[in-house]
Amino acid sequence: MNFDTLFNEQIDQLKSDGNYRYFAELERKAGKFPHASNHVKGEKRDVTVWCSNDYLGMGQNPLTIAAMCEAVQRTGTGAGGTRNISGTNHDHLLLEAELADLHGKDAALLFTSGYVSNWAALSCLGSRLENCVILSDSGNHASMIEGIRHSKAKKVIWRHNDVKDLEAKLKELPANVPKIVAFESVYSMDGDICPMREIVEVCEKYGAMSYLDEVHAVGLYGPRGGGISEREGLADRITLIEGTLGKAYGVVGGYITGSTALCDFIRSFASGFIFTTALPPAVAAAARASIMHLKTSQDERMRHQEQVAKLRARLDRAGIPHLMNDSHIIPVMIKDPVKTRMLADYLMNEWDIYVQPINYPTVPKGTERLRFTPSPLHTDADIEHLVNALSHLWKQCAVSHAVA
Amino acid sequence: MNFDTLFNEQIDQLKSDGNYRYFAELERKAGKFPHASNHVKGEKRDVTVWCSNDYLGMGQNPLTIAAMCEAVQRTGTGAGGTRNISGTNHDHLLLEAELADLHGKDAALLFTSGYVSNWAALSCLGSRLENCVILSDSGNHASMIEGIRHSKAKKVIWRHNDVKDLEAKLKELPANVPKIVAFESVYSMDGDICPMREIVEVCEKYGAMSYLDEVHAVGLYGPRGGGISEREGLADRITLIEGTLGKAYGVVGGYITGSTALCDFIRSFASGFIFTTALPPAVAAAARASIMHLKTSQDERMRHQEQVAKLRARLDRAGIPHLMNDSHIIPVMIKDPVKTRMLADYLMNEWDIYVQPINYPTVPKGTERLRFTPSPLHTDADIEHLVNALSHLWKQCAVSHAVA
Repeated sequence: MNFDTLFNEQIDQLKSDGNYRYFAELERKAGKFPHASNHVKGEKRDVTVWCSNDYLGMGQNPLTIAAMCEAVQRTGTGAGGTRNISGTNHDHLLLEAELADLHGKDAALLFTSGYVSNWAALSCLGSRLENCVILSDSGNHASMIEGIRHSKAKKVIWRHNDVKDLEAKLKELPANVPKIVAFESVYSMDGDICPMREIVEVCEKYGAMSYLDEVHAVGLYGPRGGGISEREGLADRITLIEGTLGKAYGVVGGYITGSTALCDFIRSFASGFIFTTALPPAVAAAARASIMHLKTSQDERMRHQEQVAKLRARLDRAGIPHLMNDSHIIPVMIKDPVKTRMLADYLMNEWDIYVQPINYPTVPKGTERLRFTPSPLHTDADIEHLVNALSHLWKQCAVSHAVA
Repeated sequence: MNFDTLFNEQIDQLKSDGNYRYFAELERKAGKFPHASNHVKGEKRDVTVWCSNDYLGMGQNPLTIAAMCEAVQRTGTGAGGTRNISGTNHDHLLLEAELADLHGKDAALLFTSGYVSNWAALSCLGSRLENCVILSDSGNHASMIEGIRHSKAKKVIWRHNDVKDLEAKLKELPANVPKIVAFESVYSMDGDICPMREIVEVCEKYGAMSYLDEVHAVGLYGPRGGGISEREGLADRITLIEGTLGKAYGVVGGYITGSTALCDFIRSFASGFIFTTALPPAVAAAARASIMHLKTSQDERMRHQEQVAKLRARLDRAGIPHLMNDSHIIPVMIKDPVKTRMLADYLMNEWDIYVQPINYPTVPKGTERLRFTPSPLHTDADIEHLVNALSHLWKQCAVSHAVA
């Protein structure tokens, strides 16, 4: 059997649908964010990155860089084992304490990524709580969907951000089965924010566990960066808050926070936690420095919101349609994978602007888009340059008709 | 519903079975491996680590430390996004080229961990190759088991390292269904090595894809550290070789290598690859430095095997029974979780020797053990100290009877 033929058939299909993905090869340069080098066929060119999830540029902040280097010099490059077998380092525990404090919880548990934290926690909860039903927002991230699927628990999907639908579905379930309501605060691709208070109230009314993914909000919202749940004063009413160290905090890794019993349960039973090498202590140290900084400094968050508002206002002025939301994520809908790539290529080649075309499976087919994420380090001139480029494009092509 | 009560019931059960896990809090000290500090209730104490998977101490090698620091200073602390959305860095591609070369393959694909690489690759292959059957060695790691389960493909378990059983099961399957034979080279807990040539021959005979996990062998075996498949001259006959950057290479992360079409297929379709933040470029740079060093230097591998042989000989001389195998892993079977923990506690408290008790679910119940992993950096004096401690224990207690 020729496996390569089987693989190529499916890859060719992707290509003919316009959904094949070409990765842009970047070279990040510490201190230059959002500018980076783009490598194409051995040539390097300076570009402005407009689609990074290093939302605040903390991945190039001198504080996090120094913390990581210091810890590499002090502890080495790796943890040396799973958390159970020689891999638990003092830096991991310091970080877990920091994270528990960030969300006002008793405990926290680190994972190698946000994906793994969702996948491992939900698959563990769903499979080990007898008769458990997981009620999942229809817009949830792949990591939650895969975790729920892996748990083999009964899954009920409620309409995205629709609390009435959630309540109707909770009401139908027997009182004595464990229920988990899984949702996000900021949805990554549309940038919309959930009606958190209403969701929490419904969870409380029906005795359901609330499972909240704050990956696109931690560091960015709330007076200490605790996310939307902190900003809304709801963190103490949410059972489990999951987050990432790889976006606003600028490093890599994921975590959950909650009660001591909850974290101990996941620690003790989740395959994706148990059977994997721990994050390097230096990663933990860098993440902790980043969190500590953003607990007290408001500058990055304020400037972030300013630049987001500026880009939105400039797009409006230029007549470039974008999805409205209350977050920092600015999607410009193109609704066709081939056109989205064409626009992205043009921005890169003609304007030195890097924005990755977002296509299926990251978003549903027919909702392809350019997704802009301004950071506090994008200057007004960067914004001007981007809007000029887009205006030029919108005028030049007949694209505007396609995206009406 | 009180969820904490539900969690605590299951945790209490673990405790009463002796299977509850207490993590040892270590502080690794660059340049001191295998020595580290153990934190207990705010007190620090120097211990010798005897259960690390940083098998060669590369996690504290000046070369890897320098490479990681240099890259942190150059690129920052994180990748800034998924591989698709602004996260592909030049350092990732350099590392993937290095890994492809290591195994003599056309391509390689990086993952956030070895666990994720197995889980994502097998679940992708199993779910997307129509009618696929995965034939899995009964001793396979949790990451493969979970990946196969997640794929929902038909799974056939063959007896551990039993090629006759594998062939009998392959023979029963229709010629026209895609078959994947999944196995490891070195099995982590017993340390036994698979009959690779025979497995490969059977795979070829029945047109099956061979999926080989080399995580406990890369860096350690073969003239360039390419693992058992390199040592046996079989790499070019194996479809997919999976490995880790978190054990002998001393950093963190996982990968697969294989044909260009295979890697592109997993890259394009595997959820666990697509929807996750890329490893920090600095992690990639450190891993690459480690791999490059171990491609040419034989010193670490030679000294490693010497120290392993010395410990085995000394254990034999002292009459301490250990599982025989051809690898660097030395399991001393205790076969009871409570006794294993008791012995480990005693070694830590009385002898400053850290060896984690290995219990369920890492090994089957009734096969609990102490698992020793000598490194090139364990001195003869370290070995002497360990064997003295164990001899003392074996004499003092009646433990020897229990482990006969």
